[in-house]
Amino acid sequence: MASWHRLSAILPDTAVVSKDNHLVIGGCDVVDLAHEFGTPLYVFDEATLRHSCALFREEFGSRHPKTLVLYAAKAFLNRALAQIFKEEGLGLDVVSAGELAIAKSVDFPLSEVYFHGNNKSKEELELALGWGVGRIVVDNLYELSLLNEVAKKMGIAQEVLLRLAPGIDPHTHRYLATGVVDTKFGFPLSQGEEALRQAIEASHLNPVGLHIHLGSLIHNVEAYQEGVEAVLRFAAEMRDKLSFELAEFSPGGGFAIPYAIDDKAPSIADYAVAIISTLLGIAKELSLFPPKLIVEPGRAIVGRAGVALYTVGAMKEIPAVRRYVFIDGGMGDNIRPALYGSRYEAILANRVQDKGLQRVTVAGKFCESGDILIRDINLPQPMPGDVIAIPVCGAYCLPLASNYNASLKPAIVLVRKAKAHLIRRRETYEDLLAGDVLIS
Amino acid sequence: MASWHRLSAILPDTAVVSKDNHLVIGGCDVVDLAHEFGTPLYVFDEATLRHSCALFREEFGSRHPKTLVLYAAKAFLNRALAQIFKEEGLGLDVVSAGELAIAKSVDFPLSEVYFHGNNKSKEELELALGWGVGRIVVDNLYELSLLNEVAKKMGIAQEVLLRLAPGIDPHTHRYLATGVVDTKFGFPLSQGEEALRQAIEASHLNPVGLHIHLGSLIHNVEAYQEGVEAVLRFAAEMRDKLSFELAEFSPGGGFAIPYAIDDKAPSIADYAVAIISTLLGIAKELSLFPPKLIVEPGRAIVGRAGVALYTVGAMKEIPAVRRYVFIDGGMGDNIRPALYGSRYEAILANRVQDKGLQRVTVAGKFCESGDILIRDINLPQPMPGDVIAIPVCGAYCLPLASNYNASLKPAIVLVRKAKAHLIRRRETYEDLLAGDVLIS
Repeated sequence: MASWHRLSAILPDTAVVSKDNHLVIGGCDVVDLAHEFGTPLYVFDEATLRHSCALFREEFGSRHPKTLVLYAAKAFLNRALAQIFKEEGLGLDVVSAGELAIAKSVDFPLSEVYFHGNNKSKEELELALGWGVGRIVVDNLYELSLLNEVAKKMGIAQEVLLRLAPGIDPHTHRYLATGVVDTKFGFPLSQGEEALRQAIEASHLNPVGLHIHLGSLIHNVEAYQEGVEAVLRFAAEMRDKLSFELAEFSPGGGFAIPYAIDDKAPSIADYAVAIISTLLGIAKELSLFPPKLIVEPGRAIVGRAGVALYTVGAMKEIPAVRRYVFIDGGMGDNIRPALYGSRYEAILANRVQDKGLQRVTVAGKFCESGDILIRDINLPQPMPGDVIAIPVCGAYCLPLASNYNASLKPAIVLVRKAKAHLIRRRETYEDLLAGDVLIS
Repeated sequence: MASWHRLSAILPDTAVVSKDNHLVIGGCDVVDLAHEFGTPLYVFDEATLRHSCALFREEFGSRHPKTLVLYAAKAFLNRALAQIFKEEGLGLDVVSAGELAIAKSVDFPLSEVYFHGNNKSKEELELALGWGVGRIVVDNLYELSLLNEVAKKMGIAQEVLLRLAPGIDPHTHRYLATGVVDTKFGFPLSQGEEALRQAIEASHLNPVGLHIHLGSLIHNVEAYQEGVEAVLRFAAEMRDKLSFELAEFSPGGGFAIPYAIDDKAPSIADYAVAIISTLLGIAKELSLFPPKLIVEPGRAIVGRAGVALYTVGAMKEIPAVRRYVFIDGGMGDNIRPALYGSRYEAILANRVQDKGLQRVTVAGKFCESGDILIRDINLPQPMPGDVIAIPVCGAYCLPLASNYNASLKPAIVLVRKAKAHLIRRRETYEDLLAGDVLIS
């Protein structure tokens, strides 16, 4: 296990080690949490969530007051988190009627919601317009025509952004690159003019801006700068050709965070400086009025705020090969190592700073060889009953969770001021069977 | 799209093309099913399920009457399917209390249930023994001791198999190889003697057999033959050293099936011949009484019986690059292409044999570039509203399904004799929010 100093950089803001040598988050001993709520358990630290929201608001807002921070719901959203983002004054980036339903259930101001996605259904668009969603981010010509039809039928003039694919390679995992030329997302720049012309001519659409999203876990700020410049140059061309006014611009999200102690990632300030300096600089050069800036962090807000807790069960020594430590979760609740090859750290939560490290592999309980969470990590001789904490599990773990092997999805608690609040109950076997219908 | 003749080899037994040029399964026009139940929809053909069960019983049973076929629940189990396997006289291979709960809910004879897994919890073992599960397949020394403790406390003499890892590489996807030396599953052969000694000495365990499982999608029957031989030689040695009698032996499952029209896979008869000839031959050579044979097909029973239906929404042409066709499902209900690089075929279900093929890429609606179900396939010019059927979706799609992007898990129907029975209802937004708790 890495030193506490290095670990604390990937743990929630409130993480400390107790006198008992236990991991404490939000004033709660996570070993107690594991015993009280059972494991696997996902713990979210409210202070870290709110602090990350504030950082985005401030780092971007102080440099460009006309900024709206949208939380990208796909990283992870449930009702309690939606409530927090609402209180923090963020908007929401949603990609489905399901995410809209979560937002609506906590009276999230839907005018601050941007609806993305490459294949929104007619029913989803009707729902979104009916609920007064602020912006639809139009992905393709089919959607543009479908949306205009829906808006016309409902007697609504809908404000839209067009999503462009600027052909920029952000040098991330190929599953996470979304702004290259061969992508399922957005209008290729070469079709942008035609798309914008159709949006302007559509009877019930009001194109107010342009959107790009280059991918996820983007470490190089230059990719954003290239994107900003490409879109502004396109906007200036469209101003001259189509009298288009770029009132809003979004460079998307995809801000990287460190997962392992040797990972590096730019700070939020780094991203803000790069994006805004390019935005203002190029706007000035092209005599464009600087647009409202829409940024869409997801992972960068929830990732480090979430920690997964597991209990050690069986262990296995394969002589001269590997020592396996088995936990009571795995690819059912966190498929990222299997899907993306993601690396994680681990902490023995009930003996955080013990000496006598042992090299182990942390594997899950799912019946599949790919169900390995961490290959080769040093931990203080794990024993059955020990609690293992895995940092940076707030984003893209729970949203991709399955009931593989008829497992039950984990409980989730939010910790604040030394108190843990259950914000999602653990699934039950009744839940598992609830949708099944026997043929009589 | 491939010719009907070639496609029919990967479709359910009852698949035909109607006069209207629609795909029909189990006497049901799947286009009607898509309209009646909505999409994404998973359709299982009862005739194919029952026929596959019968084939395994007959191909193995006719060559070795002492055979028990277990259905491997992890491939996909729900209540209606469990009922069918019960009627077909199969046993069950389960890996969790959740799968046990499904079996129990249809009064599946639990004496015919074998409980596998590398990290069974104490609670799961207590539940299994309390319910009278036939065999526990012990994975490691920790479990051996834990199980004996549980059995002792409950006053039960539990029959067990030991799972061995014979160090055989089945040449499949690395996530799917489970019998190699560096695996989280089972006792390395070098530890087998010690494990067996402890099992024999344990006060409340009765070791009746040995189990191996080499992996999934194993195309080479020789891997099974190697495995059978390795275990029988080990058993003969243990007979001499420990007076161990091998009453039961399982070479596991992992039988391959074709997914794409150019895939090849051995027939069930091929596997049966290879396994049983080696079993009987080596047993004779070693003067072992031929053990009861336990085979554990999962995918080979449900894979081809299941077809996924989707509706085409938006489409996108990237000039000189790619034509995308977007469907209303994707990695949320079928993560196999993203996770394993799996290849699939597709059928335009409402215009099956239309001419004028077009090369397209079938992508899902999830906000991720990896959400591509089929890259480059020829289909008869798909249009919005068309129904796309993807064959061989019966195994490992629904069990790994998530609510990614707050999507709803699909409905499932079972077709038989021209009637469709809903066997799992589609999730609702209420389901999505049901477990959430707001902090008051």
